[in-house]
Amino acid sequence: SEFFDPIDHPHRRYNPLTGQWVLVSPHRAKRPWQGADEQPQPESNVAYDDSCFLCPTNTRVSGDKNPDYTGTYVFSNDHAALTANTPSAPENSNPLFRCQSARGLSRVICFSPNHSKTLPQLSVPAIRKVVDTWNEQIEELGKDYVWVQAFENKGSVMGCSQPHPHGQIWANSFLPNEISRKDTLLREYYSQHGTNLLVDYVNSELADGSRTVVETEHWLAVVPYWAAWPFETMLLPKVHIRRMDELTEAQRDDLALAIKKLTSRYDNLFKCSFPYSMGWHYAPFFESDRDFSETSTEHWQLHALFYPPLLRSASVKKFMVGYEMLAESQRDLTAEQAAEKLRAVSDVHYLD
Amino acid sequence: SEFFDPIDHPHRRYNPLTGQWVLVSPHRAKRPWQGADEQPQPESNVAYDDSCFLCPTNTRVSGDKNPDYTGTYVFSNDHAALTANTPSAPENSNPLFRCQSARGLSRVICFSPNHSKTLPQLSVPAIRKVVDTWNEQIEELGKDYVWVQAFENKGSVMGCSQPHPHGQIWANSFLPNEISRKDTLLREYYSQHGTNLLVDYVNSELADGSRTVVETEHWLAVVPYWAAWPFETMLLPKVHIRRMDELTEAQRDDLALAIKKLTSRYDNLFKCSFPYSMGWHYAPFFESDRDFSETSTEHWQLHALFYPPLLRSASVKKFMVGYEMLAESQRDLTAEQAAEKLRAVSDVHYLD
Ligand SMILES: O=P(O)(O)O[C@H]1O[C@H](CO)[C@@H](O)[C@H](O)[C@H]1O
Ligand SMILES: O=P(O)(O)O[C@H]1O[C@H](CO)[C@@H](O)[C@H](O)[C@H]1O
Repeated sequence: SEFFDPIDHPHRRYNPLTGQWVLVSPHRAKRPWQGADEQPQPESNVAYDDSCFLCPTNTRVSGDKNPDYTGTYVFSNDHAALTANTPSAPENSNPLFRCQSARGLSRVICFSPNHSKTLPQLSVPAIRKVVDTWNEQIEELGKDYVWVQAFENKGSVMGCSQPHPHGQIWANSFLPNEISRKDTLLREYYSQHGTNLLVDYVNSELADGSRTVVETEHWLAVVPYWAAWPFETMLLPKVHIRRMDELTEAQRDDLALAIKKLTSRYDNLFKCSFPYSMGWHYAPFFESDRDFSETSTEHWQLHALFYPPLLRSASVKKFMVGYEMLAESQRDLTAEQAAEKLRAVSDVHYLD
Repeated sequence: SEFFDPIDHPHRRYNPLTGQWVLVSPHRAKRPWQGADEQPQPESNVAYDDSCFLCPTNTRVSGDKNPDYTGTYVFSNDHAALTANTPSAPENSNPLFRCQSARGLSRVICFSPNHSKTLPQLSVPAIRKVVDTWNEQIEELGKDYVWVQAFENKGSVMGCSQPHPHGQIWANSFLPNEISRKDTLLREYYSQHGTNLLVDYVNSELADGSRTVVETEHWLAVVPYWAAWPFETMLLPKVHIRRMDELTEAQRDDLALAIKKLTSRYDNLFKCSFPYSMGWHYAPFFESDRDFSETSTEHWQLHALFYPPLLRSASVKKFMVGYEMLAESQRDLTAEQAAEKLRAVSDVHYLD
């Protein structure tokens, strides 16, 4: 009988950060496609759009006027999913109808005044301003909230409702599912092995190289062994860093460079503005909330996650639907094959 | 200070079937939308399309010719994500690089010969044939596989790549994530309470009624208390049924009726062919695979899950992106508000 070959045979890979498996079907990459084609988003060439809510000097839906900003610009989301003063919900002892009140807030970060420049098209110093803004926001809000989720939805296919390049910050009085699950799993690994899971992982990937997409002096971007989305990546510092504020100046500059290279490779893959959702995970602010007694965070490692939906072209995406929603995530090409494709394109943006 | 009101205040609800929370932001329903509009799928009026791979008498991509079928028609997926004879993968003791080989197969179920009739547009006896086909396939494949996922991706927005109405069956040599997690949680509830979680739930919902969408003699469709998708529903028998094959003739006929009513309400909501992914969860076939020692299934209850993406119109969907992927599912309208909207439309299809 045949031997198992992960490039030919269906298999499952385990994600130690979520406790979930991913079904990998590498033989299936040649499936024909007659389904939906996304309309690639028309790319904007204008640096300033007078109908944009996010451009400098314009008036937003709320009536507030944006300043004539030159770097990043942060404002409160006019339609936040959370409120800072939610009253407490009464306790309900029925295990089938559990409810908690939720406090928080939501802000928008305009990445730059330029209406048409996405992250890979900004200069390294301009991206460094975005890094600094993420860090300032997280540190400020971490004083009041146990969790601060910084993220970017890029492209209308990822639910982005404003074309001006921007990210969001949602602060939470609770540990959201993904963070709570990750905290438990990282903590378990730390107590079993006495080492940090993601520091061990980054060292393994540095030694291996087959899943590497970008390596800079201080940072590594890989398609994780257990990636679910076709071109999913994780961006990690090479040393143990629990939160962004622990980064040195040199590590921050180098992070801006790593982001520029990674997102340029993304855009170069299908010669389009590559859509994704990305965001940061790091040690929660347990100390900021008296309900969280576990204050040790040695088991955490700062990292960014990029979840891009495209599969084969600028217009054909992977659908995480029926089987995936009801049973398990499924992918066609392997993590190693995806990394190879991203390494095969330049790290200089095709429009630069 | 104000009192907590779940219609005004952000809160989280707990899903006892997944162990995950959902963030509910009911005050946010009035958010303006400038993002992506889906192109509503042009509805087909032809009963037969000679270029369709699924219509009777046509030749498929594989070269196989479909028979001139009159009810449902099942064939092997020409591009299955799984293979029946995958060799075993070698054990790997590194907890960061865990891999399992996966065996299985994948079949397509054409719901009827008619190219243009989706489930709500079929007669109750024709839907009953779909119910019988699901049951036959699950029972047959359950002899060899511990899990058999029956599902439908409806609409191109849900990754459906063939317009002819059809569902899929994926058989698995492993318990997929969602089933494994649900098995653990249902088992825990059973051992703690001595009752079946979903039987307790269906009784609570029958007594309450605020989340009911369709009630027939033997079946109940509700927007679950913990629903994540705007118009998500769960369809359950009113009594304890572990798998479809335990259903009586009367319960099967009534299931076809309940499906017709539920999916007609869906189509009537935005006067369109309402996209969704739906599928069945039920007691796994532990006995079919010697690796699974837990063979008791008293804690299981048969149920179907419907995950529809639309939010406000035939063209505006909910995006489960940035915050949702990185932190926690989020919804705007409450489960009770969604159920009310679905109850407000007719259970007779707008094209009937
Ligand atoms: O097999 P199909 O219908 O071509 O494919 C569709 O359903 C599958 C199972 O949910 C998904 O993996 C695919 O992403 C989706 O496009
Ligand atoms: O707040 P926005 O950008 O309007 O909304 C977007 O991001 C949010 C956070 O991921 C999602 O809840 C919305 O579904 C999405 O459209």
